[in-house]
Amino acid sequence: MENKQQLLAKRPVGVPDETTWNLTTSPLRSLEEGEMLVEQHYISLDPAMRGWMNESRSYIPPVQIGEVMRAGTVGKVIQTEGKTPFAVGDFITGWGGVQTHAITRGEQYYKVDPNYAPLPAYIGTLGMPGMTAYFGILREGQIKEGDVVLVSGAAGAVGSVVGQIAKIKGCRVIGIAGGAEKCAYLIDELGFDGAIDYKNESVKKGIKTHCPKGIDVYFDNVGGEILDDALIFLRKNARVVICGAISQYNATSAVEGPKNYLSLLVNRASMKGMVVLDYAQDYGHAMREMAGWMQEGKLKSREDVYEGIENFRDTFLRLFSGDKNGKLVLKVN
Amino acid sequence: MENKQQLLAKRPVGVPDETTWNLTTSPLRSLEEGEMLVEQHYISLDPAMRGWMNESRSYIPPVQIGEVMRAGTVGKVIQTEGKTPFAVGDFITGWGGVQTHAITRGEQYYKVDPNYAPLPAYIGTLGMPGMTAYFGILREGQIKEGDVVLVSGAAGAVGSVVGQIAKIKGCRVIGIAGGAEKCAYLIDELGFDGAIDYKNESVKKGIKTHCPKGIDVYFDNVGGEILDDALIFLRKNARVVICGAISQYNATSAVEGPKNYLSLLVNRASMKGMVVLDYAQDYGHAMREMAGWMQEGKLKSREDVYEGIENFRDTFLRLFSGDKNGKLVLKVN
Repeated sequence: MENKQQLLAKRPVGVPDETTWNLTTSPLRSLEEGEMLVEQHYISLDPAMRGWMNESRSYIPPVQIGEVMRAGTVGKVIQTEGKTPFAVGDFITGWGGVQTHAITRGEQYYKVDPNYAPLPAYIGTLGMPGMTAYFGILREGQIKEGDVVLVSGAAGAVGSVVGQIAKIKGCRVIGIAGGAEKCAYLIDELGFDGAIDYKNESVKKGIKTHCPKGIDVYFDNVGGEILDDALIFLRKNARVVICGAISQYNATSAVEGPKNYLSLLVNRASMKGMVVLDYAQDYGHAMREMAGWMQEGKLKSREDVYEGIENFRDTFLRLFSGDKNGKLVLKVN
Repeated sequence: MENKQQLLAKRPVGVPDETTWNLTTSPLRSLEEGEMLVEQHYISLDPAMRGWMNESRSYIPPVQIGEVMRAGTVGKVIQTEGKTPFAVGDFITGWGGVQTHAITRGEQYYKVDPNYAPLPAYIGTLGMPGMTAYFGILREGQIKEGDVVLVSGAAGAVGSVVGQIAKIKGCRVIGIAGGAEKCAYLIDELGFDGAIDYKNESVKKGIKTHCPKGIDVYFDNVGGEILDDALIFLRKNARVVICGAISQYNATSAVEGPKNYLSLLVNRASMKGMVVLDYAQDYGHAMREMAGWMQEGKLKSREDVYEGIENFRDTFLRLFSGDKNGKLVLKVN
């Protein structure tokens, strides 16, 4: 049997191009004692992956040149050797990487039930993006009923869940997204109180209109000018949760710093970074609560599924162009 | 009797010039029931005063055109009318403003004892700057024994107290200050573990040398490039306390945002603004603890005293050029 893999060939400067990864095909080796062969079904495409490709110090080691590109995955165990934590036929989620098959001993893998939620949800709303949203808005954002919550990247895998959780907790929620279709989705499907279309209107004016008394929590997935605009409207004791900076990940010049950061001082506000891995011990609890919300219809999940491991790069770049609808997923088997 | 006052004449753009304030001399009006006449001895000069001169939204209303320039003061009650909270001969501290005499009913004034600490200390280490340092490093910085604490503006009224409190609490303390004399003062007089002379060496290299394992708390009084340098060296769960941004207060172009703010994300660090007025109900406790440290010789206070209300502007500008030694004070009587 063969394995197709996307190997990191070169550290990109700016936007990854056709020389960034090599797609290789090679025979799968035989399993050793304790190993499982996983037929991967879905690969998660997330903005954070861009950061893992840089050589610089970060919260996890960079992907090495020649290594399989790191990614979250969900798939089926199709073969085992000796004593293994999961059995043939089990569906499991973990860090399988951008390849059609993965060989693993099961470290950091979890069993999932395809009858309970569709498989892609386990790398979306019930996976890392969902966990990021859950712990980001509840633990870091410390929302309480009546808070005004602004979220950027609001139609994305993290932002859409952030906004819905904030609604469940009784907040007023405004989302920032690109394009009329996404903005309509936020309001009509997800129940947001307002949406700002950053591609077609002034974000600053939009915030002023939708949040006349300012913002209690800003959940930032994008950085750049939108972060700067949000800082202007912080209320006293506001919390800014820094989850990501999609607008800056492919920057070839220095990252733009938030010019309005002194709003933190005037408003006694905080800006705090988060990394979801820190909450690993509580994932189980969060997944059960979120799955409950999904079953009650309070939490909706939308995946944008593309096919073919050979289309990895083109699909990945949709994260940065915004040309996607919901959680971006690549189907490879 | 006459009163000399520095009135705000014009909102400055950039550095205040000779048209910013008007020095006026006028006869003192007679007191009304409940009022006291205070002969002001010392006026506190603080970087925050620059912010109060701007029209923009801030944590307290801006000084209005034609008003006496707002400032903390310490002085002696020399006349009273009717029932007043303090008596003739009492020394009191409050918001007397930049004038030789103040008429007040005593709101937000506190009685002080010149035998207990020298008068200027009550607008320095035992006044707003000291309170800022105390609550900033203890409540916002949440220091614990063994933490590595970096402080900018370290020879100033706030920074020098921040560093000394961190030493009292068992931290390793590195200060950033301008010039060899100030750096020697930090180490030889105040007991800092290291000092970085930003006027004569690379701050980035200095931090790397003095804090090889990174920083747990960065207490920022200056903003700009030094804030950016500090962000690079944050440790996991580090706290950045934004107390001020001396380097930016006179900026005529947009404030420089901290380009390295994504270090907050990678290191799960926080950046939080503070305003000392929020802690007003606990000033008494803090002053007693700090006065105790002063008497035990653990907390040293140095004032740089200039004379004459007519020299207000020239003296005030020393805050931004760094041309001062310790807490900047103007003696007016």
